[in-house]
Amino acid sequence: MKKTSNRLADGREIIYYDLRDDAVRDAVDERPLEGTATASEIRYDPLLSEWTAVTAHRQGRTYHPPADACPLCPSRDGRLSEIPEAAYDVAVFENRFPSFTGGPGPVGPAAADGPHGLLAHRPGAGRCEVVCFTSDHHASFASLTVEQARLVLDAWTDRTAELSQLPGVEQVFCFENRGEEIGVTLQHPHGQIYAYPFTTPRPARMLDSAAGHAARTGGRNRFDDVVAAELADARRVVCQSEHWVAFVPHAAHWPYEVHLYPRTRVPDLLALPEEARAEFPGIYLDVLRRFDRVFGPDEPPTPYIAAWHQAPFTSPAGAPAREDFALHLELFTVRRTPGKLKFLAGSESGMNVFINDVPPESAAERLREVASDCNAPGDGPAGGPRTSA
Amino acid sequence: MKKTSNRLADGREIIYYDLRDDAVRDAVDERPLEGTATASEIRYDPLLSEWTAVTAHRQGRTYHPPADACPLCPSRDGRLSEIPEAAYDVAVFENRFPSFTGGPGPVGPAAADGPHGLLAHRPGAGRCEVVCFTSDHHASFASLTVEQARLVLDAWTDRTAELSQLPGVEQVFCFENRGEEIGVTLQHPHGQIYAYPFTTPRPARMLDSAAGHAARTGGRNRFDDVVAAELADARRVVCQSEHWVAFVPHAAHWPYEVHLYPRTRVPDLLALPEEARAEFPGIYLDVLRRFDRVFGPDEPPTPYIAAWHQAPFTSPAGAPAREDFALHLELFTVRRTPGKLKFLAGSESGMNVFINDVPPESAAERLREVASDCNAPGDGPAGGPRTSA
Repeated sequence: MKKTSNRLADGREIIYYDLRDDAVRDAVDERPLEGTATASEIRYDPLLSEWTAVTAHRQGRTYHPPADACPLCPSRDGRLSEIPEAAYDVAVFENRFPSFTGGPGPVGPAAADGPHGLLAHRPGAGRCEVVCFTSDHHASFASLTVEQARLVLDAWTDRTAELSQLPGVEQVFCFENRGEEIGVTLQHPHGQIYAYPFTTPRPARMLDSAAGHAARTGGRNRFDDVVAAELADARRVVCQSEHWVAFVPHAAHWPYEVHLYPRTRVPDLLALPEEARAEFPGIYLDVLRRFDRVFGPDEPPTPYIAAWHQAPFTSPAGAPAREDFALHLELFTVRRTPGKLKFLAGSESGMNVFINDVPPESAAERLREVASDCNAPGDGPAGGPRTSA
Repeated sequence: MKKTSNRLADGREIIYYDLRDDAVRDAVDERPLEGTATASEIRYDPLLSEWTAVTAHRQGRTYHPPADACPLCPSRDGRLSEIPEAAYDVAVFENRFPSFTGGPGPVGPAAADGPHGLLAHRPGAGRCEVVCFTSDHHASFASLTVEQARLVLDAWTDRTAELSQLPGVEQVFCFENRGEEIGVTLQHPHGQIYAYPFTTPRPARMLDSAAGHAARTGGRNRFDDVVAAELADARRVVCQSEHWVAFVPHAAHWPYEVHLYPRTRVPDLLALPEEARAEFPGIYLDVLRRFDRVFGPDEPPTPYIAAWHQAPFTSPAGAPAREDFALHLELFTVRRTPGKLKFLAGSESGMNVFINDVPPESAAERLREVASDCNAPGDGPAGGPRTSA
């Protein structure tokens, strides 16, 4: 892998990750691009004890540009995009409309935080990046080759390493939103990375659960025990390989939801050993291709969110150790049947209680049925029958 | 108010709340309605330590029926609906496709919960009801009269009292989903009530925050201090009256979000005193009418979720007291500008971090601008100018 860093016309960084070590990435961004003013702020919700972001500058961001003006395609034939090169393998650049940007803000209590700190707010420090998985506008992650998917994994890992070093950053979140149904405005296959200036609620809650479990069980790890319980139950296992396990979780929130864990627990992508890295593309492409087949061959590709859960880098004082966290990927779709979406209405958005119409066992069965003939390292639950669609 | 209870053809309860004490509600449900099989189950998410519901029987539920087959209109002209009467003021009935139903399930650990209880599941005990706000199919909550809105408030209160007595029920949640954008399948103005067999994550977290605050401040109440801080800051106050305060919260999650609190804290609707009850319709109708005007006169009515936050009835051992909770209503919309929705994508659904493009101060200013000429008890922040659209 070759890595090349450059700057866009407005000063944002762009980083190319290439399969070939002799790739030359020195094209200059010729656009007359003005700098953008960002006004990102994080605010503390005093009732939920969680941070939220207020990003006024993002209201005017790019919305469904025409296909011939895709900002993620390479710059060629006289058309200038966000990526100055005429070709690339994987390209990562700073988001022009970031939710988080800049150095660390003031820490500690401030007068403007109001009585008892109930109106606390801080600059939205951190960084947001866009990850272009391939220069092919019409591809998808599921259509990448094993080699390409491995390059994306290496880019995610490198970005996690770099962003975790930024002052004030506590957590790095690599994710992909795919499909208009979840508001994706650009069709070009891409993901995003958020470097948050705080520990987000989900890993914080998972670490709390893990700490309680350890205290009750004489030091056992909650994540390890959950993966072991799912493997032992077997009804929700979708596929597995030597180093990875993919299952629909017992208490899935979404109609189709798969959690992908390395068999050997590590806290983040940086700690993932080479043997698991080498096997990742095979099993992830297999899972994604199953996802696209869930609703049948006549349905448009399944919209999904793919979310890497990594341990926060700075834990609040007294919080459980980050080493107890288990790196895993959560993949889920908002589609529940062809043409019907799962909406987050009163129960979900009001009380955070998910109502899931698809039993996890049925979802897993369907995902096993639609096994692809791709070069996946393995299919079906351990010892279970393999069914082909 | 007169209350009459009856049974539908399949045995579900229907309750009429009437303004006139001489209303007679004895119509018989003539439909050949078969009983439904429900298979609701709650499952414990071992990583987030939260319950989720699995409701396989709901996949086939009614979806956008034609207007002339509205199941929430009264039964007349030979057309039979869910409501046997030819007219009604407010009607409440058990949902035919409930997420929660039936008596209490087994409590305590069970063998089927898997090792360390990591795969815990229980029957989805509880109850789900539909609340028809008016017999007028083309009305909305915002178009109700003060008298009608007061009747709905009384119905919510009565339902909270009754449902809290059901065995196993820990929390009663009255809410309204309005608009196709959030998946509402029936246009007839209606809301829902969920009686959950557990304490949901949001009030649990709010009570935790309140307990921490009390410990740090020598017993001060977090909710009281938040309302006082918002009133003192004044920039986000939308309108207020003698007994109620409506503001956009400092750390709003949604593009337009209003929290409505009685000035005197009570834990639930049952404890709300008559003077606040009498004033509620005026201020709530005012807020709802502002909501409908936010995006301008040419836009379709604003989609929204209105969620009553009430203290849980049974608190887990060691949890903060329910008396510390503050009854309030949270109203929010998923629309961020005309034609554009706020999607819950990677950051929101993956990490529970909301990115809000509309600064709460701008949202409050807009909501003050679009003041209606309805008989609201008061407008504008204390001492601030009142602007009319």
